[in-house]
Amino acid sequence: MSTEVFHVVPEDQHNALVAAAYRHRGFDEAESAAAARFAAYATRHGIRTHNALKALHLDHLFGSGSQGCVRGAQVEKIPSRFAAAEIWNARRKLGQAVAYDAIERCIELADKYGVGMVSVDEAFHYLWGGGYVMDAAKRGYLAYTNCTAALAEVVPFMGKHPTLGTNPHSWGFPTTDALGFPIVIDWATSVVAMGRVQQLAREGKPLPPDAAVDDQGRPTTDASKAKYLVPFGAHKGYGLSLINEIVAAFIGGSLPTIRSRWADDGDKHAPCFFFQVIHPDALSAGAFAAGRDRDANIKAVIGDILGHGNEKCLLPGQIEAAFAARTEKNGGLLFSTKEVEAFNEIAAECDQPLWEPASFKVAE
Amino acid sequence: MSTEVFHVVPEDQHNALVAAAYRHRGFDEAESAAAARFAAYATRHGIRTHNALKALHLDHLFGSGSQGCVRGAQVEKIPSRFAAAEIWNARRKLGQAVAYDAIERCIELADKYGVGMVSVDEAFHYLWGGGYVMDAAKRGYLAYTNCTAALAEVVPFMGKHPTLGTNPHSWGFPTTDALGFPIVIDWATSVVAMGRVQQLAREGKPLPPDAAVDDQGRPTTDASKAKYLVPFGAHKGYGLSLINEIVAAFIGGSLPTIRSRWADDGDKHAPCFFFQVIHPDALSAGAFAAGRDRDANIKAVIGDILGHGNEKCLLPGQIEAAFAARTEKNGGLLFSTKEVEAFNEIAAECDQPLWEPASFKVAE
Repeated sequence: MSTEVFHVVPEDQHNALVAAAYRHRGFDEAESAAAARFAAYATRHGIRTHNALKALHLDHLFGSGSQGCVRGAQVEKIPSRFAAAEIWNARRKLGQAVAYDAIERCIELADKYGVGMVSVDEAFHYLWGGGYVMDAAKRGYLAYTNCTAALAEVVPFMGKHPTLGTNPHSWGFPTTDALGFPIVIDWATSVVAMGRVQQLAREGKPLPPDAAVDDQGRPTTDASKAKYLVPFGAHKGYGLSLINEIVAAFIGGSLPTIRSRWADDGDKHAPCFFFQVIHPDALSAGAFAAGRDRDANIKAVIGDILGHGNEKCLLPGQIEAAFAARTEKNGGLLFSTKEVEAFNEIAAECDQPLWEPASFKVAE
Repeated sequence: MSTEVFHVVPEDQHNALVAAAYRHRGFDEAESAAAARFAAYATRHGIRTHNALKALHLDHLFGSGSQGCVRGAQVEKIPSRFAAAEIWNARRKLGQAVAYDAIERCIELADKYGVGMVSVDEAFHYLWGGGYVMDAAKRGYLAYTNCTAALAEVVPFMGKHPTLGTNPHSWGFPTTDALGFPIVIDWATSVVAMGRVQQLAREGKPLPPDAAVDDQGRPTTDASKAKYLVPFGAHKGYGLSLINEIVAAFIGGSLPTIRSRWADDGDKHAPCFFFQVIHPDALSAGAFAAGRDRDANIKAVIGDILGHGNEKCLLPGQIEAAFAARTEKNGGLLFSTKEVEAFNEIAAECDQPLWEPASFKVAE
C-alpha cells in the first residue's frame, strides 16, 4: 500500500458536505444525495481521479457552471416498442443520478428478460463508469456501460487531429462469491488521460511511447510538447473508441468535435450513455465441469489463468477491492491532507462546518 | 490493391467443392452448406486466414479429426426463464452452422425485445467472428460476438505462462446506408496471432515490440525465440481477453489450459460462444441533431471523426468492403495460384473435379 498519509473521514460527514455543496449549486435533494453517494463510492475504492473534489471541479467546468448540466432536470423516457430496452432523454441532468437510475432499470429488465438496456441521449458526465458496473456486479449482475467523453482529445489511428473522446468502457462481473470481489474492467480508450500528460509535463517526465502526438500530429514522448492523445493498442483501441461514437450516433448524439462546446446553433453538444445488464442465469447452460457449481467454476477458471507461474498477476478490480478493504478496516473514507484542505475550501464556499484534520484518525 | 495475381473462381464452383469436402468428412448437408457459405463469405472479404483451406485444416487439427467437432450433432436448447436470452449446448456441432443459427435467433429476439442473446456451451471454432456480425450489420442490426479460442497461447499481463486464448471480440454496426459498408471491429486480444510469429520466424524477420515472450516469459522481438503471445495494450487487452474467459465460465466452460486438449477425464474441453444483437431502433432517442435522420447523423459523426486532417484514416471494415467490391467487380471469388493448387489437393481427396487455373480469368 501507499505510504501516503490518509485521514479517516467518517462517510456521513463526507456525504453531508458533498450533498451540501451540490445543493449550494442548485441541485435538488435527490441529485445531491446521488452525487454524495457516488463520490463516497469512488473514494472508498481509491478512485481519486473521480472523488467529490474532481466531481465538483468538472461540474464547474462542464456542468452547472457551463451549459452541460441542468439542475433538477427531469429525465424523459422515450416511448419504445422494445420490452428489454429503454431510451431516455436525460435533458442534461446530473450524470451520477441518471446513471444510478439507469443501472437500476437495467437490473429490473435483466431480471425479467435476461438482459436489459438503457440508452441515454443528452447526458452529462457520469464520472467513473466503473463505479456503476461494480455496484451492479456486487449485486450479482454482469454490467456494462460506455459513454462519449466530454471533449474530443484523441486522434484516430493514423490521423492528425483530435476528433474522438477518451471514450471509456466499463465491464463488471459478479465474482464476489467466487473471488472475494467483483472483476471490473474499466478504462479509457486513450493510453493516458490528458491530466496525466499535464502532470508529467509539470514534473518534467517523459510520456510512454505511442501515448500522445504534438500539434502537428507527430508522435512524441515529450510531455511538454504533447498536445493530443492517441488510442491504446493502435487500430484496436481506435476501434474501441469508435464504438462509443457510433453507439452515441445511433442514440442521437452529434459531432464529437462540438461536444461540450456550447453554442446557440440548434445542434446537440451533450454526450450519450449506454448501459446494459445481464442476469448471470441468462448465460448459464447449467452444466459446469467436474461437478462444480457456478462460483466454483469461476474460481477454477480464474485459478487456472493466475496459476502456472502467473501468481503475481492482478485481476482488474483487485486494486480497488484492496483499497475498499483498507477503507473498511479504518471505518471511514481516506483523504490526504491536501484533499482535506480542498474540502475545507468547498465547506467555506457553502457555509458548512470545516473539517478539523486533528479530529480524524490517521489511516492504517 | 495488392499486386498478387488472383484467379476468379465462380462462387458456385467453390461452394460445391467445399461442401463436398465437408460431406466427405461426414458432415451433413446443412453443415456442409454452412461451411461453404461461410468460406465464400470470408474469401469475398479478403479474410484469407479463414477461407475454406484454413477451415478444413483447422477441422482436421481440432475438429472432426480430433474430438473437438461432432459431425451431424444436434444443438440442445437449454430451458431458460428469460425471454430475450437463449442458452444452447452445441454438443460440438460445426461452429459455422451454430453461429449462423445463433445470430439468426438473436435477430429474431432483437426484433421483439430490442436486444437478443444466445450463449453457447460445448462449441467448436466458428473461425471468423467478424463474418457473422458483418452479415447481421448488413441486415441492419448491431451485432457482437466473442468466444474462447481453441488454445491457451497468451500470457496474462505481468505473467509468464500462457493461460488465455487469443480470445477475439467482433462488433458489427449497420452503417451501410450511411457509409456504403458496415463498420466491423474484429480482432484477437493478442498483438499478433501465433501463425504470424511462425511466419516471421521462417522469414527471419523481427516481431513488433511487446507482442511475444520467450519460454521464460521474457519479452522478445526475435520471432525464432518467441514462444507465447502477449495481450495487446498491456492491462487493457488483458482485461478484454479475460472477458471471454469469464463469460465462458458463466456459460459453463472449464479451464482455459485444458481447452482442445482432449482426455477422458470427465472435464470439459470445448470453447464457448456468446452472441448478442441489438435492433437500432432500440437505441434511438429519435431526435438527431440539425434535422438529420439516423443515417445522415451517422454519416455526419463519422465525417467529423475522419475530417480535420484525418482523411487518410481508415474505418474498421473498410479494407474488407474494398476487397468485397473487387470480388463483386470480378464476378467470382479471388484465389492465388497456390490456393488453387491447395483446393485441387482437397478435390482429389474427395473425388471432385479439379479446378483448371486456365479456365479462370485473372482478377482485375
